[in-house]
Amino acid sequence: MDKTIEWKDDCSLMVDQTLIPFEYKKIKIKTSKEMYNAIKTMIVRGAPAIGIAGAHGMCLAAKELYEENNFIKKLLEKAQYLNSARPTAVNLSWAINEQKKVIENNKNETPKKILNALIENAIRLENEDILINKKIGDFGASVVPLGAGILTHCNAGALATVGYGTALGVIRSAYKKDSSISVFADETRPRQQGARITTFELVRDNIPVTLITDGMCSYFMKKGMINFVVTGADRIAANGDSANKIGTSTIAIAASYYNIPFYIAAPKSTIDMSIKSGNDIVIELRDENEVKIINGKSVCAEGTKVINPAFDITDSGLIKGIITEYGIFKPNELQKIFS
Amino acid sequence: MDKTIEWKDDCSLMVDQTLIPFEYKKIKIKTSKEMYNAIKTMIVRGAPAIGIAGAHGMCLAAKELYEENNFIKKLLEKAQYLNSARPTAVNLSWAINEQKKVIENNKNETPKKILNALIENAIRLENEDILINKKIGDFGASVVPLGAGILTHCNAGALATVGYGTALGVIRSAYKKDSSISVFADETRPRQQGARITTFELVRDNIPVTLITDGMCSYFMKKGMINFVVTGADRIAANGDSANKIGTSTIAIAASYYNIPFYIAAPKSTIDMSIKSGNDIVIELRDENEVKIINGKSVCAEGTKVINPAFDITDSGLIKGIITEYGIFKPNELQKIFS
Repeated sequence: MDKTIEWKDDCSLMVDQTLIPFEYKKIKIKTSKEMYNAIKTMIVRGAPAIGIAGAHGMCLAAKELYEENNFIKKLLEKAQYLNSARPTAVNLSWAINEQKKVIENNKNETPKKILNALIENAIRLENEDILINKKIGDFGASVVPLGAGILTHCNAGALATVGYGTALGVIRSAYKKDSSISVFADETRPRQQGARITTFELVRDNIPVTLITDGMCSYFMKKGMINFVVTGADRIAANGDSANKIGTSTIAIAASYYNIPFYIAAPKSTIDMSIKSGNDIVIELRDENEVKIINGKSVCAEGTKVINPAFDITDSGLIKGIITEYGIFKPNELQKIFS
Repeated sequence: MDKTIEWKDDCSLMVDQTLIPFEYKKIKIKTSKEMYNAIKTMIVRGAPAIGIAGAHGMCLAAKELYEENNFIKKLLEKAQYLNSARPTAVNLSWAINEQKKVIENNKNETPKKILNALIENAIRLENEDILINKKIGDFGASVVPLGAGILTHCNAGALATVGYGTALGVIRSAYKKDSSISVFADETRPRQQGARITTFELVRDNIPVTLITDGMCSYFMKKGMINFVVTGADRIAANGDSANKIGTSTIAIAASYYNIPFYIAAPKSTIDMSIKSGNDIVIELRDENEVKIINGKSVCAEGTKVINPAFDITDSGLIKGIITEYGIFKPNELQKIFS
C-alpha cells in the first residue's frame, strides 16, 4: 500500500495534501522546522497522519542534534516545539510522547543509537497505523446497513492517515462487502477537504460519491438518501465528547433529529483520557482568509469580520458508537475500556 | 429608499446581484425573455424581489403584445412562461396572479389600458413591499433579545426585496433599538449569498457582522455567541413547514437542539395555503457546477457527482414563530389567520 507519509532516505516523504485533487505529489521534509511548517500549513493533515509527522519530526530533530552537547535536553525542547504546531489533534502529542518514551528507554545509549531507535519506532508506528485502520474498517463495516447512503465530513481517509483511513476505512471495508452502498462527501468549508480529498480518494477507488455542501445534510437525511454517518476525530475526551473538523457537530445534531446513527471512527491514540469532557479541548482558531478567499478571490464584502474555528465538539450523547481497533464502544464505555 | 428593483423608463431596472459585493450596478430588463433569464440565472433573487420581477415581466409582455391579436390569450401564455423560470418561491406565481387579476378586471378595456393598469399595479406592489418589510422588521425586533447574537442564512435583505428586507429588516429594526446586537452571516454555499450579499448590506449599514461557514452554527450556538436565528422563506405551507435556501433546516435543527429561538420572516404573499405541508413543495435542483466550481476553478476531483437542491424544508415544529406584516404567528396559527 502506498503510504501517505513514510520515513524514507533519512527524510519524511509525504503527499502534499494542499495540491489534491489536482496533483498527487510527494515532497521530502528534511528538517524539524520544515516539519513544523508542514503540519501548521496543512501540507500534512488528518489526526493520524499528523501523529506520524510528529514522530518523524522527532527523528529529524535527532538527526540535527545528535552530534551536539546536551542532546537529550535539546531534543525534548524540539518535542515541545513540534507539539505546538497544531493544538487540537491529540495524535500529535501522542506520537511525540511515544518518541519521548524511546528517548527515556535509551537515555544511557549514544545519541546515534537514540536516533536509530527513534527511526525504528517511527516506522513501527507507520505500519501499525495501517493495521489499526483495517481493524477499524472491519469493525465499522459490521454496523453499516445494507445499501446505506453514508455521509462523511472532511477527510478521514488514506490521506489523513498512513493508509486505508479511519472513516473512509469503514467505507472501504463496507464497500468490499456490499457494493450497493454510496457515499455523500460533505464539502467541508473552509478548506474543502471533503470536496478536494475525499472525492479524490473515492473516485480513485471507484466507490460512488456525491459531493454536497455542508448545509445540505438535513435535505438528504429527510429524503432518506443519507441513513448512516461516520467521521474521524481529532481528540476524544474521556466522556466521549469528540473534537473533529468544524461542522461535524452540526451534522451529528441533524443525524440525531432524523434518528440516523452517527459514528466516530478513530484509533485508541485519539482518545485522550486526561481530558474529562469536550469543554476542556483546545479548539484551534485559524486565519480568516481561509474563509474569505476561495481559489485566490474574495467571497465577501470588504470589512467583513471572520471567526474561523477549525474544529467543533460533538456531544457524546449524539454519538451512537466510537469505532476503534479494539471494537465499537458507546461513548460512556471508554472510561472502562481504555483507562 | 433606493429600490433593488423598480419600474422605470418603461423597463424593469434592477441591481445585478451576481456582481455583489464587488460591483453595485443596475441593469435594464427590456423584454419578457430577458426577465425570464434574469430570474433563472439569479441576476434577481430573493423571493419578494422575484415576485416584483414577475409583475414587471407581465408589464414587459404586455408591452410586447398590446398591438397584436389575441392579446389576452398571448399574455396569459407569457404568464405561464414567466412563472416557470423558478419553481420554489411562491412569490413569483403570487405576483403573476396579482397581475392576472388586473387583466381579468380590465378584460373589456383596450390592450393599452390593460398595459397601463399592469404597470400601475406593479408600482403599487413595489411600494407595498417596502412598507410590508418595515412592518415585519418592527414586529420582529420585539422578540430579539437584548444584545443578541443573531444568525441569518442566505440573504433576505434589501437586495432580496424591493428594499429594507425581511430577515434583515428584523435585524435593521432591532439594531435601531439596540446597537449592542451583532450578526453572524452564514456563507450559504453553493452560491454564497450570505458571504456576498448579506455582508455587503450589513457592512454598508455599519451593523457588526461576522461571516461564518455553513457548518459552524453549532460551534457558535454552543458557545452562546448565537442565541437568535432569523431567516427568510420562499414558500410556507399551510401547516407552517417552510421552504428556504438550502441549509436552513440544518440550522433550525441545531437551534432546536440548543433551545435557541428560530424565526422565519416573510410577507403574507409567501404563505401558500394551497400547499398542505412541506412534502408538497417542489424543490428546484440547480446546475452541479454551482457546487463544483468556485471563482472559476474546480474544488473537487474530476468525475465527482453532485446533487444541488436549492432549497430545503424546515419542519414547522422547529419554527418558534413566523414574522409577517400582520404580526408574529406560531406555525399552527397560519391556517386560522390566513385562510
